[in-house]
Amino acid sequence: MKEYKVGILGATGAVGEQMRIVLAERNFPISELRLFGSSRSAGTEIDFKGQKIKVQEASLEAFKGLDLLLGAAENDVAKQYLPDAAKMGILVVDNSSAFRLDPEVPLVIPEVNPEDVAKNKGLIANPNCATIIALAAVASLHRKARIRRMIVSTYQAVSGAGKGGIEDLMNQVHAPEGEAPAPKTFPYPIAFNLFPHIGGFNELGYSSEEMKMQNEGRKMLHDPEFMVSCTCVRVPVIRSHAEALTIEFEKEISPEEARELIAAAPGVKLCDDPNNKQYPMPLLTSDQDLVYVGRIRRDISAPKEIYNKSLCVWCCGDQVRKGAATNAIQIAEIAFGLA
Amino acid sequence: MKEYKVGILGATGAVGEQMRIVLAERNFPISELRLFGSSRSAGTEIDFKGQKIKVQEASLEAFKGLDLLLGAAENDVAKQYLPDAAKMGILVVDNSSAFRLDPEVPLVIPEVNPEDVAKNKGLIANPNCATIIALAAVASLHRKARIRRMIVSTYQAVSGAGKGGIEDLMNQVHAPEGEAPAPKTFPYPIAFNLFPHIGGFNELGYSSEEMKMQNEGRKMLHDPEFMVSCTCVRVPVIRSHAEALTIEFEKEISPEEARELIAAAPGVKLCDDPNNKQYPMPLLTSDQDLVYVGRIRRDISAPKEIYNKSLCVWCCGDQVRKGAATNAIQIAEIAFGLA
Repeated sequence: MKEYKVGILGATGAVGEQMRIVLAERNFPISELRLFGSSRSAGTEIDFKGQKIKVQEASLEAFKGLDLLLGAAENDVAKQYLPDAAKMGILVVDNSSAFRLDPEVPLVIPEVNPEDVAKNKGLIANPNCATIIALAAVASLHRKARIRRMIVSTYQAVSGAGKGGIEDLMNQVHAPEGEAPAPKTFPYPIAFNLFPHIGGFNELGYSSEEMKMQNEGRKMLHDPEFMVSCTCVRVPVIRSHAEALTIEFEKEISPEEARELIAAAPGVKLCDDPNNKQYPMPLLTSDQDLVYVGRIRRDISAPKEIYNKSLCVWCCGDQVRKGAATNAIQIAEIAFGLA
Repeated sequence: MKEYKVGILGATGAVGEQMRIVLAERNFPISELRLFGSSRSAGTEIDFKGQKIKVQEASLEAFKGLDLLLGAAENDVAKQYLPDAAKMGILVVDNSSAFRLDPEVPLVIPEVNPEDVAKNKGLIANPNCATIIALAAVASLHRKARIRRMIVSTYQAVSGAGKGGIEDLMNQVHAPEGEAPAPKTFPYPIAFNLFPHIGGFNELGYSSEEMKMQNEGRKMLHDPEFMVSCTCVRVPVIRSHAEALTIEFEKEISPEEARELIAAAPGVKLCDDPNNKQYPMPLLTSDQDLVYVGRIRRDISAPKEIYNKSLCVWCCGDQVRKGAATNAIQIAEIAFGLA
């Protein structure tokens, strides 16, 4: 079996670390792993399958010979290095938002549009975490009945903002009352609090995070009329985003059909028996790769004309894994014919 | 000025305690305050305006002579005592859900349907906390443009489940890792977690909490076609429920008009400048009586035909105060001509 030379850009961040763990777990065929970071983190030694690997400062020179480069850095770093790396013949799968809406760059969730991987010109983008979780959850329903409109409220874990988000929460939770340190990553204290503010706001009053599900969803579903309105909320949960979806379909679909489709679909797990306390939640879905889907029911607010075409769904998934690292590596597996 | 003999049934619970605090704060004209509890809590001494008041075991005998009895007990206790207390000529305002849908019992939010207070036959019901916060938030919009349909996701604080909810959260948060005590009030640990489970589930898959906004809303708005679908979620916040509302109106209404209406309406506070980090959140809205309203924007998922009749709104309010104690006392003030 062919083995690949793989690099991770942004290797010491939350997503970069998770990529390394997921590569090892999935036994991705690797002949060499190179870890890249800022000059600050260069020199740090990191364990991979029992081997110590030194973090190197990122540079095109240092990328030479790679087959795959996984991007887990901020947008500016991604823009600085990744298009050039792709031009060097390296397959680049990038988790930043820098290239997601670039028409030359496929944006892929393997459960939604795996066929788009083949259209790449060296660079493939990994979608936003909340978008991956929502669309992976309902991909099988979309294939059956075509989603026209979604109203989404998110419950997003602090680790979506990286390690600094976890530090903010834990420092505040464990401080003596009235002595919580000022937030460093978030605009306000997040312990025992929550706020509808993830990213900057546009002229319509939507945050950048809230626009991603519609913008990225339209691209992946190849449907410029896919309509989404989101309220994205940061909550004091360490890991796993939860989302409440109200969905309007083009065709009729029943809760029973939806349950059957989800039970049979890849990447998701039906978890829908509320009377026996079975529903997705962060503690249940953290540190694994499936998106859990439950609370499937009719939207009882839907007007008669669309009642049989409307569903409410609740889903939850680990946004550092399926929402970022795992999805990126799944894309690489498809590109290399490993999936 | 006339002074009233006032009783609180369930005086040692979270809502009962808050009723005592709010009565004092508002200088409700009281000549005598009697506190009632179970045999377990009888004898406890509680301070009210510098006076020690002994909690008595509830009984019709002990209610004699009262002008007002505020109910803050569970449904079974409410059913056992309150209809009989009302027959004794006492005005009863009850916070339990026992009588809310009884056609003989007005259900009132002062910002929504104060006129219904006058229809009482001795007993008036206080609505569900999440329902009060959502409908108080948008009452002025409803009067202007009439709400037809709402899709709601809630972020509900643990104190909505009483003192036991706070104990669960604080015990779990402060336990050493891996040693968190088993939950006593909630079905699962709530620290760093959340779950879409408040109350039992009906045959459609909705929880009792999720049905309240539609059922109680229809009664208060006098509109049997008011359509609501809710996802009610418990989150690790101590106090103040937050809610994401997507609203379809009968008539056109713009975000600007909505902001003006809310800025001028009683009981609510416009808090809507996201670019300057102004939006409602639990830490900002706890321990006060206003419902904060913000993130007012078009529902960008709305089809063309209803786009100008649709809004998204985010609101947050203290569910122990406006969602329970304060609303009940406001009802009594209307009934006694004090408002």
